Amino acid sequence: MKKALDYAAVKASRFVDELIELLTLPSVSTDPAYADKVEKTAAWLVDHLGALGATSARLTATQGHPIVTAHFQAGDALPTVLVYGHYDVQPPDPLALWESPPFEPVIKGSQLYARGSCDDKGQLFMHLKALEAWMRTTGRPPVNVKLILEGEEECGSASLPGFIEEHKEWLDADVVIISDTSMFASGVPSITYGLRGMTYVEVSLTGPDRDLHSGTYGGAIENPINALARMIGNMHDADHRITIDGFYDEVVALTSAERQEMAALPFDVAAWLKEVGVSVSRTERGYSELEAATARPTLDCNGIWGGYIGEGAKTVLPSRASAKISMRLVPNQNPKDIAAKLQAWMEAKTPPTMRLDFRMIHGAEGVLVDTDSTAMAAAAKAVEGVYGCRPFLVRIGGSIPVVADFKRILGLDSVLMGFGLDSDAIHSPNEHFGLDRFAEGIEAIIRFHALYADMAGSDEH
Amino acid sequence: MKKALDYAAVKASRFVDELIELLTLPSVSTDPAYADKVEKTAAWLVDHLGALGATSARLTATQGHPIVTAHFQAGDALPTVLVYGHYDVQPPDPLALWESPPFEPVIKGSQLYARGSCDDKGQLFMHLKALEAWMRTTGRPPVNVKLILEGEEECGSASLPGFIEEHKEWLDADVVIISDTSMFASGVPSITYGLRGMTYVEVSLTGPDRDLHSGTYGGAIENPINALARMIGNMHDADHRITIDGFYDEVVALTSAERQEMAALPFDVAAWLKEVGVSVSRTERGYSELEAATARPTLDCNGIWGGYIGEGAKTVLPSRASAKISMRLVPNQNPKDIAAKLQAWMEAKTPPTMRLDFRMIHGAEGVLVDTDSTAMAAAAKAVEGVYGCRPFLVRIGGSIPVVADFKRILGLDSVLMGFGLDSDAIHSPNEHFGLDRFAEGIEAIIRFHALYADMAGSDEH
Repeated sequence: MKKALDYAAVKASRFVDELIELLTLPSVSTDPAYADKVEKTAAWLVDHLGALGATSARLTATQGHPIVTAHFQAGDALPTVLVYGHYDVQPPDPLALWESPPFEPVIKGSQLYARGSCDDKGQLFMHLKALEAWMRTTGRPPVNVKLILEGEEECGSASLPGFIEEHKEWLDADVVIISDTSMFASGVPSITYGLRGMTYVEVSLTGPDRDLHSGTYGGAIENPINALARMIGNMHDADHRITIDGFYDEVVALTSAERQEMAALPFDVAAWLKEVGVSVSRTERGYSELEAATARPTLDCNGIWGGYIGEGAKTVLPSRASAKISMRLVPNQNPKDIAAKLQAWMEAKTPPTMRLDFRMIHGAEGVLVDTDSTAMAAAAKAVEGVYGCRPFLVRIGGSIPVVADFKRILGLDSVLMGFGLDSDAIHSPNEHFGLDRFAEGIEAIIRFHALYADMAGSDEH
Repeated sequence: MKKALDYAAVKASRFVDELIELLTLPSVSTDPAYADKVEKTAAWLVDHLGALGATSARLTATQGHPIVTAHFQAGDALPTVLVYGHYDVQPPDPLALWESPPFEPVIKGSQLYARGSCDDKGQLFMHLKALEAWMRTTGRPPVNVKLILEGEEECGSASLPGFIEEHKEWLDADVVIISDTSMFASGVPSITYGLRGMTYVEVSLTGPDRDLHSGTYGGAIENPINALARMIGNMHDADHRITIDGFYDEVVALTSAERQEMAALPFDVAAWLKEVGVSVSRTERGYSELEAATARPTLDCNGIWGGYIGEGAKTVLPSRASAKISMRLVPNQNPKDIAAKLQAWMEAKTPPTMRLDFRMIHGAEGVLVDTDSTAMAAAAKAVEGVYGCRPFLVRIGGSIPVVADFKRILGLDSVLMGFGLDSDAIHSPNEHFGLDRFAEGIEAIIRFHALYADMAGSDEH
């Protein structure tokens, strides 16, 4: 391992130059105008993986953007790690807010500025460079490594689940490792073991078959905005618990160990609230802000519209009111089951004067990774080797649907070992990534390969 | 009176031809592109009034469109009637839905189709033709008649209250008569004695200072849409009464005589609901549909918006949610007082995590005209003379702010004697007016002049 670490340290500057070359390719997946650039990026990665000495490296076309796969075969008796990453990026808009052009990477201080520098080109490239360190020193990594790099993460990953289904055998592995998350804070390394899921629905209440004059009809015809507001207003009780019947039935409760780990995190609630301009939080009764925002289910109205929304006054009694409502789910809530429960609750409360339209837009399951696994232990030890302190195990409030896909289709847990920071401005202008974290990530991955080979070998082989 | 009625009957066809000429002038007040046409219409009316033999007829320029005034002096000892009407019209859009061009009047069957045919050119022209009948037969009307015809009714009547204030003395009269309302139904003549007022406000709740990611913050930061929905949802109780503290304090209750008159009206609730696609009404407990829609105060959310309202899903926890809320008021509710009560109620319910912005857009007082006055008795008798049956006294749910202005500034009650029908499509494509009703209206006005002269003369002079 020392040789590989030394190699990475010596070549650090070239690694950054190569990442800069990758970041100049504008692989914006959601905009068809960039389709050839996305493909070019995939081809660049296949070439690069081939040059590193991959046993195989290939580009597979899909209905959308290509999926890049590669295999670094080390030995049949050795455990296998499946690396997931995505080489597509968010659109750079609004361009006017970038201090330097998004696809002309520039280093300022210790930070590399470019779209994708952190999310996720910078983080996936750490895996390629860790593999290079092994290939150029010992000729092979200490574990078998497979890579699956998609180009549609920022536009819904439409092709990925089908690809995983179709290539189940080829993708067979012992564990998935993903670097597409953040550390808890600067200098506070963490490994993510919990993700929330999601049920997202759009609903409408329709009353009269056209907009009416509120002078003529107001008082006798029930107003769909008032009625929808009443429903949404009743979805939480005074304890800020969600009132949908059965909503909490399947929720896996936080253990006291988890709550202690969360309470120990260096989380400054006042600063966190101040940063978004809010003086007081509002959580489900009995839960801290961090628990409520990462490990408890939620219900938020994400959008609402109805009636006259232009300037001034129009005395309309509207025909219809609509809303988008999403629920962040925790294990073991099932997205479709939760949608059905919400629908039943809303139908029961729909006034006899109205019609409810209810449409589920998408769903994703929440994930809890087994924190006692060999891979998690190896990852924790690898991170500790880099930072000198044990990483915190954290849950995050967002969703990474591919993690549930790997679990469902391949039966594999994912180790979410990320090196971003919430301040990296991913999805925003002036996205950046710390060169220190880029180097630390490569080191942690090299260490993980070696540690996991040792620990899984002694455990399982 | 008989001579005047006979004259009107003989000249009916020419009266329609003249109305058609008036209707070809596109006096759309809200669109500056039509400004010269509005002015041309005012000038046409001044010329026409002069030709009828008005003592004076003039056009007064305002900040907006001109106000036309005229005086038919009959004698200092006689009572004076002030006629209000408006010569401006609604925009004709959407043009594609008109079966004939809106400013090329056409007679189909017994109906005259054109923008303004009913609202209000057709109805105000009845007053001019009634005056003509007197002028050409007896040389003067039996009462003094003053006319005030504005050109900004369809865009807010901005100039009118100031004009009334400035010309108080000239406008001095015994009663105001307005033909800008509908009959209760075809063959069911009515006189309107009650109008609702209005308080219209726009409100916003602001939480975080920008839109947040619901995965990162959902569960710990209160959502302004959910909070605003809760407030709006709580503005009615289970009896559909409005819960704003003190909202009903000043309401003048319906008398049992009024309720009996309303119950006697030929009002087909099922047909009324079916026409707007609703199977069940929702009224304040204890009140009929007609009472609730015309004589009880209401609260309707006229528009709501916040968060993401485009296609698909965006997991935003919005910074702000906004709504337009209007309350139809009844006498003696004060529009500003009601706004203050709503604001206090909302402020008390605003979560400590949010800021409430509250803005009153406009207000108008409700009106109840004394139904026992000589003018009302004369109007009822005039209508009965035309239709052979006593007109119903009705309240309507909308607002005509000028009625409150005449009361407040001049101390005058208004007699609302209108000959429209709800089916005349005013403000819609294919607006029309019945030629029978045009002739009946002229006859009723002639009768009113004579009856009011008699009855007011014997009462008051």
